[in-house]
Amino acid sequence: MANVIGVDIGGTQFRTGLFNQQGRLLQVLQGDTLRSGGRDWMLKQVYDRCESLIKSSDLPVRACGISFGGPVDFVGQRVRSIHSPGWEDFPLAQWVTENLKLPCRVDNDANCGAMGEYFFGSGRGTQSLVFLTISTGIGGGIVCDGKVLRGKNSFAGELGHLPMADSHILCSCGSRGCLETFCSGPAIARRARELVERRPDAMGRLAALCSSREDISAKIVFQAAVEGDIAAQQIVDEAARWLARALLMVIRIIDPDKIVLGGGVMQAGEVFLRPVRTFLQEMSNSTIICSTEVRLSELGQDSQLFGAQALVQEIPALVHSITL
Amino acid sequence: MANVIGVDIGGTQFRTGLFNQQGRLLQVLQGDTLRSGGRDWMLKQVYDRCESLIKSSDLPVRACGISFGGPVDFVGQRVRSIHSPGWEDFPLAQWVTENLKLPCRVDNDANCGAMGEYFFGSGRGTQSLVFLTISTGIGGGIVCDGKVLRGKNSFAGELGHLPMADSHILCSCGSRGCLETFCSGPAIARRARELVERRPDAMGRLAALCSSREDISAKIVFQAAVEGDIAAQQIVDEAARWLARALLMVIRIIDPDKIVLGGGVMQAGEVFLRPVRTFLQEMSNSTIICSTEVRLSELGQDSQLFGAQALVQEIPALVHSITL
Repeated sequence: MANVIGVDIGGTQFRTGLFNQQGRLLQVLQGDTLRSGGRDWMLKQVYDRCESLIKSSDLPVRACGISFGGPVDFVGQRVRSIHSPGWEDFPLAQWVTENLKLPCRVDNDANCGAMGEYFFGSGRGTQSLVFLTISTGIGGGIVCDGKVLRGKNSFAGELGHLPMADSHILCSCGSRGCLETFCSGPAIARRARELVERRPDAMGRLAALCSSREDISAKIVFQAAVEGDIAAQQIVDEAARWLARALLMVIRIIDPDKIVLGGGVMQAGEVFLRPVRTFLQEMSNSTIICSTEVRLSELGQDSQLFGAQALVQEIPALVHSITL
Repeated sequence: MANVIGVDIGGTQFRTGLFNQQGRLLQVLQGDTLRSGGRDWMLKQVYDRCESLIKSSDLPVRACGISFGGPVDFVGQRVRSIHSPGWEDFPLAQWVTENLKLPCRVDNDANCGAMGEYFFGSGRGTQSLVFLTISTGIGGGIVCDGKVLRGKNSFAGELGHLPMADSHILCSCGSRGCLETFCSGPAIARRARELVERRPDAMGRLAALCSSREDISAKIVFQAAVEGDIAAQQIVDEAARWLARALLMVIRIIDPDKIVLGGGVMQAGEVFLRPVRTFLQEMSNSTIICSTEVRLSELGQDSQLFGAQALVQEIPALVHSITL
């Protein structure tokens, strides 16, 4: 009998959890990410919290799984993130093993989120699941038969960068027309600001909810839509339509049992999920059966943390997924 | 030691092949499909040719694999085709077992094509491969780690029905905006006819190659493009751009080692493949690595036949793929 540690390193928060061998969360420590702190600051936080969990654990801790909020070379077990200072090509698993004396495995946050939901959340009991995390960016993870689909360059499931249409808006990846530029949080806020700029009269409920155009966020757009603002609802519908088309692409290629939607934007809940489902139903009106269930993440902000520990668990059901 | 039979039932031709247990083609019989003959006519042809191959085989024949040119419910081993009279919900594998006294497995032609190329063609030695067959329609098959990705309803890999854009053109599946309506053979011919209707002066080389607008086929469009006709090249480029976008969708989701293109339209070869590769390179200019190799089918019209026998082979490398 032994416990394991799961770590979720995100852009705004980081979390460290102690799990038993059935994957039950025993204790969790949480902190805000100091972006200016860079890599070394974050590594110190991870180290301190893991040490603390190891000390408080009633059983020996035998491994550590890490979800990293950015691209990871899974085969090489190295962080590839080029946006966060100091992380590029960093051998994170090796660092943990050397410093904390724990076997370690690292994957990106979207794959971890998919694993978390597959084994412990909305995907329990399904054969195949696609997970989308929609927040500042859009990440995706695909699990088939208990195994993450990684692809040639660990770049399978990059759903935020599905080429949706010709567009002049530059994506964070350097390309144009990516899904992320149509329905991430910043994309929804940008569309609202553009609308207000073109038609100040359309500001309506949005105006009452924020003092200036610059304050418009996706959250405020959703709130205005819930309160009946027509312009806000239009923006929500537009984003929902792009997301529905992307989900249909995924369904045509993977035909999964479930698609699970998580991340900050999906905290809007039904106001966003409802039009996504409606558009998906309209678009998939075809002789090709589409019975994929689309639902919200069950674990919320914990999807990644649960997935991180799943990377190093030895629960029989997880055996497939933890073979490198 | 025993041989197996592979059968490829297509809309224009059907083929029956005898294979040894290493998957080597020993003998092949070929015939034209009599569409008006319907199911019973086809079953009789299959029966007669299989009987003939069994008689001429030096070793016992122990199984039969069938590629069917239309939707197949793989779990139920039934043909689902709704366009071909008499085939709907037909238990083809069971029919073969009862009549020819052979264990049998059936799959759709795109999955069989993918299997054929994966084990015996352009995909040999790769881990993951996506196969597209582009002709009257567009089919797709995905093989990862030697196993066809089938999905919940046996509808994974339906690449011809990727939702590309809003469009008024109705697809054979009952939906609109599918890839098939942008770059199948009939779609390319339709675009050429539309162009000629709008601008008879653009007819150029096309006029010399066919007597009337109705005679324009994709083959003629490609030929005119090869001969330097600018209008024809535009139509080829337009179709190539849609195909490139679809391939990038597949790459973002699956990140496969190889994409193999087959089917009648791809017999055009470089005149179509070159712009597809160029557009794909342009669109995938991103920090997300895209190193998927795009190439033509190696087996040509034999992809499906080789894949059909692979369904029932017991070559160690195939073990995964033949587990129901």
